[in-house]
Amino acid sequence: MTSKKIALTPPMGWNSYDYYDTTVNEEQVRANARVMAERLKEWGWEYVVIDIQWYAKNAGSMRGRFQYIPFGYVEIDSWSRLQPDPERFPSSQGGKGFGPLASYIHSLGLKFGIHIMRGIPRAAAHGHMKILGHNETADMVADPGSVCRWNPDMYGVRDCPGGQAYYDSIIGMYADWGVDFIKCDDICNTDNLVPHSDRAYSRSFEIEMISRAIEKTGRDIVLSLSPGPAVVDESWHYHAHANMWRITDDFWDDWELLKGMFRRCEQWQDHVGPGSYPDCDMLPLGRIGAGFGDERDTRFTKDEQKTMFTLWCLMGSPLMMGGELTKLDDWTMFLLTNWDVLDMLPCRPRQLYRNENSAAWTALEPDSGEKYVVLFNLSDEPSELSVSIHSIWPRALAGIDLWEGGRIDFADGLVRATVAPHGCAAYRVTSTPKPWREDMAE
Amino acid sequence: MTSKKIALTPPMGWNSYDYYDTTVNEEQVRANARVMAERLKEWGWEYVVIDIQWYAKNAGSMRGRFQYIPFGYVEIDSWSRLQPDPERFPSSQGGKGFGPLASYIHSLGLKFGIHIMRGIPRAAAHGHMKILGHNETADMVADPGSVCRWNPDMYGVRDCPGGQAYYDSIIGMYADWGVDFIKCDDICNTDNLVPHSDRAYSRSFEIEMISRAIEKTGRDIVLSLSPGPAVVDESWHYHAHANMWRITDDFWDDWELLKGMFRRCEQWQDHVGPGSYPDCDMLPLGRIGAGFGDERDTRFTKDEQKTMFTLWCLMGSPLMMGGELTKLDDWTMFLLTNWDVLDMLPCRPRQLYRNENSAAWTALEPDSGEKYVVLFNLSDEPSELSVSIHSIWPRALAGIDLWEGGRIDFADGLVRATVAPHGCAAYRVTSTPKPWREDMAE
Amino acid sequence: MTSKKIALTPPMGWNSYDYYDTTVNEEQVRANARVMAERLKEWGWEYVVIDIQWYAKNAGSMRGRFQYIPFGYVEIDSWSRLQPDPERFPSSQGGKGFGPLASYIHSLGLKFGIHIMRGIPRAAAHGHMKILGHNETADMVADPGSVCRWNPDMYGVRDCPGGQAYYDSIIGMYADWGVDFIKCDDICNTDNLVPHSDRAYSRSFEIEMISRAIEKTGRDIVLSLSPGPAVVDESWHYHAHANMWRITDDFWDDWELLKGMFRRCEQWQDHVGPGSYPDCDMLPLGRIGAGFGDERDTRFTKDEQKTMFTLWCLMGSPLMMGGELTKLDDWTMFLLTNWDVLDMLPCRPRQLYRNENSAAWTALEPDSGEKYVVLFNLSDEPSELSVSIHSIWPRALAGIDLWEGGRIDFADGLVRATVAPHGCAAYRVTSTPKPWREDMAE
Amino acid sequence: MTSKKIALTPPMGWNSYDYYDTTVNEEQVRANARVMAERLKEWGWEYVVIDIQWYAKNAGSMRGRFQYIPFGYVEIDSWSRLQPDPERFPSSQGGKGFGPLASYIHSLGLKFGIHIMRGIPRAAAHGHMKILGHNETADMVADPGSVCRWNPDMYGVRDCPGGQAYYDSIIGMYADWGVDFIKCDDICNTDNLVPHSDRAYSRSFEIEMISRAIEKTGRDIVLSLSPGPAVVDESWHYHAHANMWRITDDFWDDWELLKGMFRRCEQWQDHVGPGSYPDCDMLPLGRIGAGFGDERDTRFTKDEQKTMFTLWCLMGSPLMMGGELTKLDDWTMFLLTNWDVLDMLPCRPRQLYRNENSAAWTALEPDSGEKYVVLFNLSDEPSELSVSIHSIWPRALAGIDLWEGGRIDFADGLVRATVAPHGCAAYRVTSTPKPWREDMAE
Repeated sequence: MTSKKIALTPPMGWNSYDYYDTTVNEEQVRANARVMAERLKEWGWEYVVIDIQWYAKNAGSMRGRFQYIPFGYVEIDSWSRLQPDPERFPSSQGGKGFGPLASYIHSLGLKFGIHIMRGIPRAAAHGHMKILGHNETADMVADPGSVCRWNPDMYGVRDCPGGQAYYDSIIGMYADWGVDFIKCDDICNTDNLVPHSDRAYSRSFEIEMISRAIEKTGRDIVLSLSPGPAVVDESWHYHAHANMWRITDDFWDDWELLKGMFRRCEQWQDHVGPGSYPDCDMLPLGRIGAGFGDERDTRFTKDEQKTMFTLWCLMGSPLMMGGELTKLDDWTMFLLTNWDVLDMLPCRPRQLYRNENSAAWTALEPDSGEKYVVLFNLSDEPSELSVSIHSIWPRALAGIDLWEGGRIDFADGLVRATVAPHGCAAYRVTSTPKPWREDMAE
Repeated sequence: MTSKKIALTPPMGWNSYDYYDTTVNEEQVRANARVMAERLKEWGWEYVVIDIQWYAKNAGSMRGRFQYIPFGYVEIDSWSRLQPDPERFPSSQGGKGFGPLASYIHSLGLKFGIHIMRGIPRAAAHGHMKILGHNETADMVADPGSVCRWNPDMYGVRDCPGGQAYYDSIIGMYADWGVDFIKCDDICNTDNLVPHSDRAYSRSFEIEMISRAIEKTGRDIVLSLSPGPAVVDESWHYHAHANMWRITDDFWDDWELLKGMFRRCEQWQDHVGPGSYPDCDMLPLGRIGAGFGDERDTRFTKDEQKTMFTLWCLMGSPLMMGGELTKLDDWTMFLLTNWDVLDMLPCRPRQLYRNENSAAWTALEPDSGEKYVVLFNLSDEPSELSVSIHSIWPRALAGIDLWEGGRIDFADGLVRATVAPHGCAAYRVTSTPKPWREDMAE
Repeated sequence: MTSKKIALTPPMGWNSYDYYDTTVNEEQVRANARVMAERLKEWGWEYVVIDIQWYAKNAGSMRGRFQYIPFGYVEIDSWSRLQPDPERFPSSQGGKGFGPLASYIHSLGLKFGIHIMRGIPRAAAHGHMKILGHNETADMVADPGSVCRWNPDMYGVRDCPGGQAYYDSIIGMYADWGVDFIKCDDICNTDNLVPHSDRAYSRSFEIEMISRAIEKTGRDIVLSLSPGPAVVDESWHYHAHANMWRITDDFWDDWELLKGMFRRCEQWQDHVGPGSYPDCDMLPLGRIGAGFGDERDTRFTKDEQKTMFTLWCLMGSPLMMGGELTKLDDWTMFLLTNWDVLDMLPCRPRQLYRNENSAAWTALEPDSGEKYVVLFNLSDEPSELSVSIHSIWPRALAGIDLWEGGRIDFADGLVRATVAPHGCAAYRVTSTPKPWREDMAE
Repeated sequence: MTSKKIALTPPMGWNSYDYYDTTVNEEQVRANARVMAERLKEWGWEYVVIDIQWYAKNAGSMRGRFQYIPFGYVEIDSWSRLQPDPERFPSSQGGKGFGPLASYIHSLGLKFGIHIMRGIPRAAAHGHMKILGHNETADMVADPGSVCRWNPDMYGVRDCPGGQAYYDSIIGMYADWGVDFIKCDDICNTDNLVPHSDRAYSRSFEIEMISRAIEKTGRDIVLSLSPGPAVVDESWHYHAHANMWRITDDFWDDWELLKGMFRRCEQWQDHVGPGSYPDCDMLPLGRIGAGFGDERDTRFTKDEQKTMFTLWCLMGSPLMMGGELTKLDDWTMFLLTNWDVLDMLPCRPRQLYRNENSAAWTALEPDSGEKYVVLFNLSDEPSELSVSIHSIWPRALAGIDLWEGGRIDFADGLVRATVAPHGCAAYRVTSTPKPWREDMAE
């Protein structure tokens, strides 16, 4: 309900899901964190996020049949609170949770995040387990009719004091551990198969409960909501209670998904602001898929990767690298550290047009006054694209190419470029005339 | 998939739900059965059906907060099979299940039915319990994403051999007990809040599994599906695998629900045949509501009761008395034993017309050749209604009033009557001229 | 509202659409009629139906741009009634309408049908033209908000006395001409792009108006409704007011459409009866497509043609040949005159099962007692299919192959056959043991 | 597609619809304009807008049966362009259109606006009339399947060069007349009965055609789109091509509609900016309804009027007075000229919270830095409402009451007020401590 005080620029970091699925362990997290600290931190990458099922025993061991083992065993304390699986996260033993790991991440100058599922563990409800700070037990607080459609671990929480106490108890514990970022799943769109369904946002009250619980901790914790697509009609509510919300279902290295993101960004562009970000999802770049039994280099072409990275930055989307950082190749490193493109991040984006074959966007960086224009080729053929820029930025004379370097002049106020299939041409706009010597040389 | 061999006329009986909700016990069932045997059996009433949660401990004890206690304790055997709560059903002790009670019912010349929820107990899934006849345990067979929207007891079963084994194991046990009628709930329309939803019939394969399991027992067991409204587009599938299916959500003593039934009967009239019945739901007549904390005489007026009873019979709907039989009053007894109306039961119904204020139906009893015509007043005022009958039954001369007795002549082939608000005028058609003496007397 | 007295078996005939689109003329109609009379009549083919836009000038002359010329000129009398284009239908000159042509068709021992669009001509509304038998003019009777989504000729009629007078005036004129069959378009599903839309059946009152107008003529006129898919929830209303109604959108020579018909027949099988037929649409067989600029032999394989013809007959669908009769080839002639298959037409159909790859049906001919069973291979590979028959027809011993001739025995009550891709095996069931001599020969 | 150069603050004016329906004439327009010039202009009111059917003969003469006479006679030039009805607008005679009236309005220092329906006159299409600047006639350009659901005058235009030429020809004529504001109807939501329908925005290309035509004129013409509700998912497109778009269906003096506007404003608040306004519709204040046969004072209570006016201003909605200006009463005059409230108009609005009973908003005026906070009582009882303000405006000490005058202190950063049913409490925030003398007096 208040102005945002944290995440005033879009969060940047790494998330374990795209490479590890449910299987990541402590050593792997630490290794990725070290790479981030050493190679990426100076460019603004700082969050290290452990994704789904860190509490699950034998996670991933039935991958051929189930992504999430149904009714599998979970690590849980006596207050119905899930704990890290001590086999995978040895430092958590003795009830320390993610505290030691968070400390390690912090010691590297980074921030620590975790994924949670909306709700209270089914195991707690069936076990009639206690809740810290309230006399009702989990079976009274859990809503037996509210289950996730794809993950079997939790029941939604009822809108009642015992439910708030449960959320207070887990978020308080996370704050004690030193958690800086919570990605809450099964809450942004609770029925993402049916567009505009009455149920798509039926658990909005649980977002409020979690937001309230975070506020009570007094700690700066970024709240990220999944999965998408978020419901445009509810944009105000996302703003009011969270810092970022997924505007798409899971995003992978597939051109159709990337092309579809242009429609989504079009819809959400007015809703970007400090501390409030429509989230285009993780970047499936570099080495991904191992936990899914399909380890591979991203299937995106280099042009598609540039298009994705440019769109995410232009749109002010959070940037969460999905690929394994210990296997970072030079090209991906180049992408992730292109300062000229990253510089767009705190922009006000505006789409100039979009059709089936191409799109163009501008952006203004409010503090610096930097201006940008990008042409996207959405077709399967190389295309000459152009857009009139002088009605937007009247003094624009030329652009500095963000990916290739070099300068192009805007003859007649027209930005014009031949763009590769699925690629883009991105420029920082300048009003400085071409220097004298260059003119002479021609 | 085969021609029906059982339930060749619509099942008639008593069901515990309308009076007892979840709380009925053995003595109460026996008492109702005795009344049926003594007073109703000769009119065709024969099924005694125990409705929902006979396996639940403390059922109804949290009525103010929950109809069904979430994650409550249930009686269950070591093969994941729910058993009667021994406190409420003492004869079930020692693993005898409903066997002794069924025997008692049978000894009265009646038939015995039970309600079940689609699926396998959640308790079995979370307890990783065994399944008779298959090496997979309940956690592998239960589908954690398939839960009933209003009852917390079960998980849907996956479409797999272990799932079929589970259904075979429970239905086989019911056959051993002597069950003659199974009302399976949460299966006829699995998403009854969203008309025409893709999910409304998403568990049709569980109907097939249960139907197959019944066939394997070799016992004649009527299969009744709930809740409604059944999905008209799937009528063939209901026919193929069940004997009756609810065409409405829960029906109570409310005129709006009764009025709405005319639209439903209109839609389903072509789907009535021996062994296959669109089911208009139980008759909330006489004394009802005790288990719901609202014990009362039915709120239907006498005219509404006649309308309901006539429509159900005309439509060939199963007749399940919902009111408490031990408190049967004379009027209700009169309704339930009006042979002239009951006689319509195995008819081929046909709606002649329907509008906002009235409707008319005919019916033909194929074996006897009896013909019927009924005028319904759906408005709130007394109305003179009429319908042309001679194009349907050209030799029709007069009608015998099914409720009042007496004869009316069809002048010009027109059936004409002044009908009370929400009431009906129902006639058996005759082609016999008025007898001489009556003529003389006038 | 009454029992059906006409079309007591499914109508069979020829329709000009599949070959001529909007362009058919009198000579072509007469030529097709002569072929029917000479070669097909004895097999039951009798209706000759002129499809859409017989009143339109220059119909088809802008085919590259429009199927129906928008705001094109139409032949119309002073009472707002469309008349045959006298250039294409010379015998209509002098206000004689289709009278002379109908007489000619009748003289061949055949019946005559026409297509009409729901509503009143837009030209009449804009011209404030008169209506026969009512003092309101067309502009008061036409509903300016009710237009067909694909044809520009008419406005829907308001539910008012002037509207009924208009329908009475055109149907009365058709009766005077000698019309035996009316295919009314844009009325069966008025919004066929949106399944289950409130608008899909929003003009049901116009069906009633037309039905009433037909009744007033006293002439036996079959009423056929288009386009589909008809709305299953409204099946009663179709029964009550029409003789046949399209259960599909336009059907063409495309396997996906034919495969989809199995789902539709499944849904509508209970609604077949004397005078009331779910209509699977015309048979795109032989030579088709000329008026569409794509003259061709049907794209259906011979197996697909047999499957189509068998399904239509089994289901009791009306049979309207779409191909040009003057170009009838031997194979198509064989299809259309296979008496063994046609013999199924007045059957009670019943689907035995259907899955993604195959389906089986039975049928009973109520009068003769003939029984049928058909196996359909819906897959792209030859398949051995089988179905148990003895629970349906216990005395069934063998089948006579309807397409190939010959007899197969039902060992163990199983009908078993290897069926070609998209093909069928169709049998008349017999309980006669194999004759002695055949046994000897083996 | 460009930054907006006109309507940089929300348009304010008067519209003839709420009082006159379709019947307004020239003298009445002039009379209202004079009142605006004399009494309202200095407060920013400047647009005089003639609403629907200024081209229709006998408009309103069949009011009991039709709001819009179907297929009625219209004034039209030889280029398919509708012209003012010369009986009602005498100065238009001789082909001068609205030129003389526009000049008069301009002479008063005001601006002139007209309502148009999307599309080309049906009369032109049926008459095969010419189009200025293109060789195709109206019948080729009109789309016969695209009609308005509630008005019978036009056909939608096809997406083709002839269609653009038609739009260019009418908009060019309006520019020549001196039109400053076009309210285009049947275009913002073309299917407003079906939320989220694919058809709701199916004519978006006509918006682009009109927008392009306006750009070609070179004249500053505000483009306003109706009816609503606009489609939130298409917000970018509205921004790109129009200046204001209705976020609601027709708004009248009914509390339920006003209460519902809070949900709509919540959804659209991020989309307000210079030249781009979500439009809450006209203000049904003062004397309204005469043309509808229901002349009355607004049914809104004074508290509701203040709530409406405050919400519209806070939200940055255009303000179009619907009541008759020649009958302006003192109270309504007070409302329309409350400078303190009007001062909010070019604000950035933000909802603080909303529930069933109340809501709170803030707003920032970016140029002046003025800050506002408003409490709304949506319940039917007087209520004490409060909201924390200091997290939004940390230096806020007190508020100046916009309606009552006077100052309230924000103790503990809390804005607190007892608010009348359906009323509001609105404050300009100040950080100035209470003046010395006032302190003394206490």
